[in-house]
Amino acid sequence: MLKPLLLEEEKVFKDPVHRYVHVRDQYIWDLINSAEFQRLRRIKQLGTSFFTFHGGEHSRFNHSLGVYELMRRILDTFEGRIHLTYEEKLLCLCAALLHDVGHGPFSHSFEKVFRYHHEDWTRAILLGDTQINRILRRIDEDFPKKLAEVIAKTYDNKLIVSLISSQLDADRMDYLLRDAYYTGVNYGNFEIERILRVMRPQEDGIVFKFSGMHAVEDYIMSRYQMYWQVYFHPVTRSGEVVLRKIFQRAKVLFEQGYAFHQEPLMLLPFLQDKVELADYLALDESVILFYMQMWRKEKDPILKDLCARFLDRNLYKYVEFNSRDFHLLPELKELFEKAGIDPAYYLEVDTTSDLPYDFYRAGDEEERIPIMLQMPSGDLVELSTKSEIVQAISGKRRFDYKLYFPMDKVMALPGDLSQKIRERLGVMENVGASRQDYSPD
Amino acid sequence: MLKPLLLEEEKVFKDPVHRYVHVRDQYIWDLINSAEFQRLRRIKQLGTSFFTFHGGEHSRFNHSLGVYELMRRILDTFEGRIHLTYEEKLLCLCAALLHDVGHGPFSHSFEKVFRYHHEDWTRAILLGDTQINRILRRIDEDFPKKLAEVIAKTYDNKLIVSLISSQLDADRMDYLLRDAYYTGVNYGNFEIERILRVMRPQEDGIVFKFSGMHAVEDYIMSRYQMYWQVYFHPVTRSGEVVLRKIFQRAKVLFEQGYAFHQEPLMLLPFLQDKVELADYLALDESVILFYMQMWRKEKDPILKDLCARFLDRNLYKYVEFNSRDFHLLPELKELFEKAGIDPAYYLEVDTTSDLPYDFYRAGDEEERIPIMLQMPSGDLVELSTKSEIVQAISGKRRFDYKLYFPMDKVMALPGDLSQKIRERLGVMENVGASRQDYSPD
Amino acid sequence: MLKPLLLEEEKVFKDPVHRYVHVRDQYIWDLINSAEFQRLRRIKQLGTSFFTFHGGEHSRFNHSLGVYELMRRILDTFEGRIHLTYEEKLLCLCAALLHDVGHGPFSHSFEKVFRYHHEDWTRAILLGDTQINRILRRIDEDFPKKLAEVIAKTYDNKLIVSLISSQLDADRMDYLLRDAYYTGVNYGNFEIERILRVMRPQEDGIVFKFSGMHAVEDYIMSRYQMYWQVYFHPVTRSGEVVLRKIFQRAKVLFEQGYAFHQEPLMLLPFLQDKVELADYLALDESVILFYMQMWRKEKDPILKDLCARFLDRNLYKYVEFNSRDFHLLPELKELFEKAGIDPAYYLEVDTTSDLPYDFYRAGDEEERIPIMLQMPSGDLVELSTKSEIVQAISGKRRFDYKLYFPMDKVMALPGDLSQKIRERLGVMENVGASRQDYSPD
Amino acid sequence: MLKPLLLEEEKVFKDPVHRYVHVRDQYIWDLINSAEFQRLRRIKQLGTSFFTFHGGEHSRFNHSLGVYELMRRILDTFEGRIHLTYEEKLLCLCAALLHDVGHGPFSHSFEKVFRYHHEDWTRAILLGDTQINRILRRIDEDFPKKLAEVIAKTYDNKLIVSLISSQLDADRMDYLLRDAYYTGVNYGNFEIERILRVMRPQEDGIVFKFSGMHAVEDYIMSRYQMYWQVYFHPVTRSGEVVLRKIFQRAKVLFEQGYAFHQEPLMLLPFLQDKVELADYLALDESVILFYMQMWRKEKDPILKDLCARFLDRNLYKYVEFNSRDFHLLPELKELFEKAGIDPAYYLEVDTTSDLPYDFYRAGDEEERIPIMLQMPSGDLVELSTKSEIVQAISGKRRFDYKLYFPMDKVMALPGDLSQKIRERLGVMENVGASRQDYSPD
Repeated sequence: MLKPLLLEEEKVFKDPVHRYVHVRDQYIWDLINSAEFQRLRRIKQLGTSFFTFHGGEHSRFNHSLGVYELMRRILDTFEGRIHLTYEEKLLCLCAALLHDVGHGPFSHSFEKVFRYHHEDWTRAILLGDTQINRILRRIDEDFPKKLAEVIAKTYDNKLIVSLISSQLDADRMDYLLRDAYYTGVNYGNFEIERILRVMRPQEDGIVFKFSGMHAVEDYIMSRYQMYWQVYFHPVTRSGEVVLRKIFQRAKVLFEQGYAFHQEPLMLLPFLQDKVELADYLALDESVILFYMQMWRKEKDPILKDLCARFLDRNLYKYVEFNSRDFHLLPELKELFEKAGIDPAYYLEVDTTSDLPYDFYRAGDEEERIPIMLQMPSGDLVELSTKSEIVQAISGKRRFDYKLYFPMDKVMALPGDLSQKIRERLGVMENVGASRQDYSPD
Repeated sequence: MLKPLLLEEEKVFKDPVHRYVHVRDQYIWDLINSAEFQRLRRIKQLGTSFFTFHGGEHSRFNHSLGVYELMRRILDTFEGRIHLTYEEKLLCLCAALLHDVGHGPFSHSFEKVFRYHHEDWTRAILLGDTQINRILRRIDEDFPKKLAEVIAKTYDNKLIVSLISSQLDADRMDYLLRDAYYTGVNYGNFEIERILRVMRPQEDGIVFKFSGMHAVEDYIMSRYQMYWQVYFHPVTRSGEVVLRKIFQRAKVLFEQGYAFHQEPLMLLPFLQDKVELADYLALDESVILFYMQMWRKEKDPILKDLCARFLDRNLYKYVEFNSRDFHLLPELKELFEKAGIDPAYYLEVDTTSDLPYDFYRAGDEEERIPIMLQMPSGDLVELSTKSEIVQAISGKRRFDYKLYFPMDKVMALPGDLSQKIRERLGVMENVGASRQDYSPD
Repeated sequence: MLKPLLLEEEKVFKDPVHRYVHVRDQYIWDLINSAEFQRLRRIKQLGTSFFTFHGGEHSRFNHSLGVYELMRRILDTFEGRIHLTYEEKLLCLCAALLHDVGHGPFSHSFEKVFRYHHEDWTRAILLGDTQINRILRRIDEDFPKKLAEVIAKTYDNKLIVSLISSQLDADRMDYLLRDAYYTGVNYGNFEIERILRVMRPQEDGIVFKFSGMHAVEDYIMSRYQMYWQVYFHPVTRSGEVVLRKIFQRAKVLFEQGYAFHQEPLMLLPFLQDKVELADYLALDESVILFYMQMWRKEKDPILKDLCARFLDRNLYKYVEFNSRDFHLLPELKELFEKAGIDPAYYLEVDTTSDLPYDFYRAGDEEERIPIMLQMPSGDLVELSTKSEIVQAISGKRRFDYKLYFPMDKVMALPGDLSQKIRERLGVMENVGASRQDYSPD
Repeated sequence: MLKPLLLEEEKVFKDPVHRYVHVRDQYIWDLINSAEFQRLRRIKQLGTSFFTFHGGEHSRFNHSLGVYELMRRILDTFEGRIHLTYEEKLLCLCAALLHDVGHGPFSHSFEKVFRYHHEDWTRAILLGDTQINRILRRIDEDFPKKLAEVIAKTYDNKLIVSLISSQLDADRMDYLLRDAYYTGVNYGNFEIERILRVMRPQEDGIVFKFSGMHAVEDYIMSRYQMYWQVYFHPVTRSGEVVLRKIFQRAKVLFEQGYAFHQEPLMLLPFLQDKVELADYLALDESVILFYMQMWRKEKDPILKDLCARFLDRNLYKYVEFNSRDFHLLPELKELFEKAGIDPAYYLEVDTTSDLPYDFYRAGDEEERIPIMLQMPSGDLVELSTKSEIVQAISGKRRFDYKLYFPMDKVMALPGDLSQKIRERLGVMENVGASRQDYSPD
């Protein structure tokens, strides 16, 4: 049986959200100090949100430590309620710490253009030739594989999986609290200590004491608010649109054999679609930003313009759009082309949607495990059957469409064309007006 | 006379420290949106502190908005007490917003190696061919020059200068509060609202109502604590030592005609000592980090090693050192050389010192303007004459010396040599032991 | 026209919720210093909640200052949007400050037994022979009358009325924030600064910019949570039940000509139902608590027992009850009587209900003014038509019934009778078990 | 050996300062529920501070729970460092919980006039015929005696004594944090979690790791600030002066055989100096306030006036006074007498002093145990030898004298006499002006 390998003295990290992050295990300590984990310091947790909320500059390193600490506290509350072996606990802690280790720079946009899934890289990092893999194998030769299964949600201990991947898990709890703290937005707050107190481990997942239902409701509401107020903020999405267009343009140019002023060495594997693990690990947000700096001096007017827009926060404006407005796009594209504004880069519908809470629906694309309440009698009931508020938003996917474009380019057109385009862009007088007082647009 | 140019509707930024940053002037809005100001998003406020306090990842952009907001509030408290023209107020607000605009990446270390002062670059940005200069000249042709004087402390209105550069100014107040918030360290907190309430403008500077003396004391103590707990943290300084060594090594290699795998285009002007404003403005922390990524694959073993150390946070350890220990250095250097560990890169004494508060001393290297209290009678008295606590630390410069070196390299030496070096490194058994429980070392 | 009468220098109160309460008007200052307003220091804001949340010991004085401060800030946001005369602003500020001035000790319970409405006393204090009346008449002879109308919601300026009495007014906003702060419960927090920013005055009430809808939702949720988590906490209600029984018993004894050890001078007017304003103003919670101290040494076993229960927090336990359980009461009462436990004092169903938000329903018992959102187009729409979450709880009154009784007395009965009663009290094994981990019962 | 008697399930109290107070032991639970402990709910922690800081309305019950919780956490940090038996731990917890149990209403003033020490009553409650004594004897027949010794600092285990009575103990730590929280004053904050982390138990007391010195400094500064900003606030002291005068007047009247409208039954034992434990326990602040209500309607003009002043917060004003000003008192008294304002009640010098930190001085009136730092070498050094800041205030007792009197009475005198008195009261134009902007005077 696996024996604990403890540090001589506990180490702590000062953390503004959880006060301290406590590390007692040598393995955890070594994982934190691995090159692959330290790399997360160079990847922002919130992607382009800093454009909207200047406080949202924290890294995935920051968040990953927080998830680990929450997991540690959750396991503490399990003492005397359920037996977990030391190895099982380590699995939980490592999954919490490493669940995001495969993320790349500006994952959302980068993944879309270069077509990969960060989940695959996480797996590669755990199982491949990495410092992390070597540390994990010191625990047990099978440990990396088990851990990869936990993170992929295929591990057979459902309790362990649910702690890191469910509708109320250590990951989500940390990011809501943390993103709220750094951005200064109040909505992400909920009573984490109370939730920890009412969590109860069961064979196949966690349940919550009925007496804590209101705290769970409050968490669901926080999640709902953070999605619409922060994560889906239209200015943040404008940043993502510009970013995607940069990657898209670079790819097109590369494919056309365009001669860059200096070869983008670190991006070549991606442009050539021959990415090795080492290439991926060398990539972080400073690399992307560096190339933007280089490219803003390139000859290609589109790449140059897009990079300057991102670096100088000269983003696209947007108008509200509807699923029924899609038929308007062809004419708009034509007008843009006529005006010499390439619609492939300068006109984009961005769609986002959120399903704040869902009960189980067999066969669904994404079978969501419901949150269960434990009644005083011991019976388990699904949350939305008890909470009117949760029921109200349960299973309702809400969509939001916006049409993005560079207003400055449209305004700079000759009067007639400019006006025509603006008319077609819709009746809204105040482009991008909604929520503008929250954070400048 | 200059007429106010106001935004149609006030804009706000959500800020976790001051709740909201309010912008009413079109000029301020335009300055915030300038390329040179947006660049501050890519420069961290706390340099290498993130190695110690993972929360300290916020940018100079973040801080600069905060200083502006505090200045705005200070000016509000002046209403009805002193008359400032609109232009004078704009001078104050612009100085607050732009006082750090000349900072480069990891200023401390970079400036030391490449020998420049960020203050000169601030001046160049205000007066040179920049978006900022063009905006400022829209206010008044002389405005950029006046502003440069305010920031350089040579402007003749001493009140305005003191608001941005004194021992209790908008800059210092914001960074103490902000750095405390993001790192999660409590020490930087003080009653900002009370300080604003007891501030009184005078012809040649600000004074504080005597009834607010304890709030001022509290601020001085916060400053003292933040310096020793955060800004001078030995692990942070270790990061700076490694950084300086990287720049130093790159410079030496360049001067020796070393063939880099790919020419470091964006650093060339610095290596050649022919820096234009545009070169400087293109530099930010992502550029530096990019080259570290590139260089960790270089052939030169020292550059390669140093870059990997910085990126993977494999920093130097330290032992306490004394001004009277300097005679030990030659022998230590010799031992390092003997061991094949180049002491020019791997053995460094780092000195730091702080003067938490000082009263005026004519002719001093740095004439510090004292903090004055206004008694109920109207008389002004210097703070330390009334506060025993401030008196206790007043004018006392405190020094701290530490000797940094890569412990891993020393440990990897053959037994005898390793032990000999460790003996010479001093009696301290626990290398780097102090404060290690605060943040991992 | 009324001229402002300002203090020479602004006065402030340090307030943990709003940081500072600012007073500039001499009239406000004088009202705060009046005997009738100072009396509110001796009446707790949360009645018997301190039994559940030991932090909930703050007074109505504390809350009233907070409502005043919020109103002051609301009026500040109106500058430039709507014109209010100085007198109208004073009306708003005075209404905010004095809206609770008629409250008596433990209002809920005391009013029920002695059959009065604190609203009538508020009116009497404003219009009667009081220091407050004299101050208000210095403003204008008609001012007290107008103010009484504002507080009674009959004043013809609907905007002014709505600021103090609507579903989102200064009173409610302050108490949610304040009660959350003092009890330590997180649920009452919402983004007050954002709500103030999106408030827009209209002729007949306030509306909220659509862009601030989520902040309003968040407020409604806070309100909902505070009601069920704090205000209706079953232990708090147990305190109220015991309190009512004390007043009820004292009244019965008085009516029966019972000889109290010492005549309860300050309660006589209430027992005799001949209360003058001066009698009412002399009453506060210390008076009630004093008599409990006296009465716990009385001969009457019921009065004695009840007072000791309240003072020593030996409250009743409860079981969940249903509207369909009322038919069980007669038998239970009979059993209690048989056991010598007078059901008139020792068995009580307490009902509570909350309607967290409602849109307008003409002719309703309590016509609630809906919260209106102002769309970018300028159109007004009712909140619940835009917010799914608010819609979910809108207009739904939720009831809660609990049956209270002294468990200790039941347990002390002979085995058979005790068991029989306990059986009849219901199937719930864990009496009072729900939420017991939140605050001890 | 004593066996732990644990509750079936842990109980918690929601606490705004420590988040939760955790109770696991049945004995602690029972003590909290005892009549003598519940009585602390009716005694304010901060006496008359609510006159200055309206938020300072919390009770000694509130604080006592907090001290208990801090002690519990301190004992947790001792695990693995020192062995304490279950009985020793219970001694610590009970001492923390009950150290203030002998406090009476407005202790400071009441004790002075009626000449007793609350410490004697604490002892009497622990050893006498009380619910608390019965619970403690269930632990062990000797337990009450041992506990009384711990609280009296005569117990032979110095570690245990120091945890509740030293310059950095659970009591002081809780009240600084708590009083700061409720009043809203920021000064009392310090990094409690860090202090707990660096505390190390030794045979005869606690010491602090040197690496935590700055946190200890910060605590000392907080203490210093709270004393001068809050505890010694001149308005609070004015409240105490008026209170003392009320008790003094009531005593004089009683001794003169004055016929009160209704006999003050609950105060008789005190007026007759024949106080039994039961009499003392029946006394709380509501009793005192009740008699003020009664007495404000008495015939005696002085008692009547004083009570109205306290209830309506019509307190005395003050002027700064000096130890060298005492010779002025006789003339002032004469003038007051001439004016018909009895100086025995209406003219009072109030002296206060604080010694923020002291190292050990054998033979001193109050031998203060110094705070010891543990160096990395293991050596212990006294705090002020390492901290310049602490050294600056160490051993320096600071005095403050103020002369209190009813300004309104002086102003109401005929012009000549009024002016003469005001002249004698000193040169200060603004009576009581200092700090008036902090909280209204």
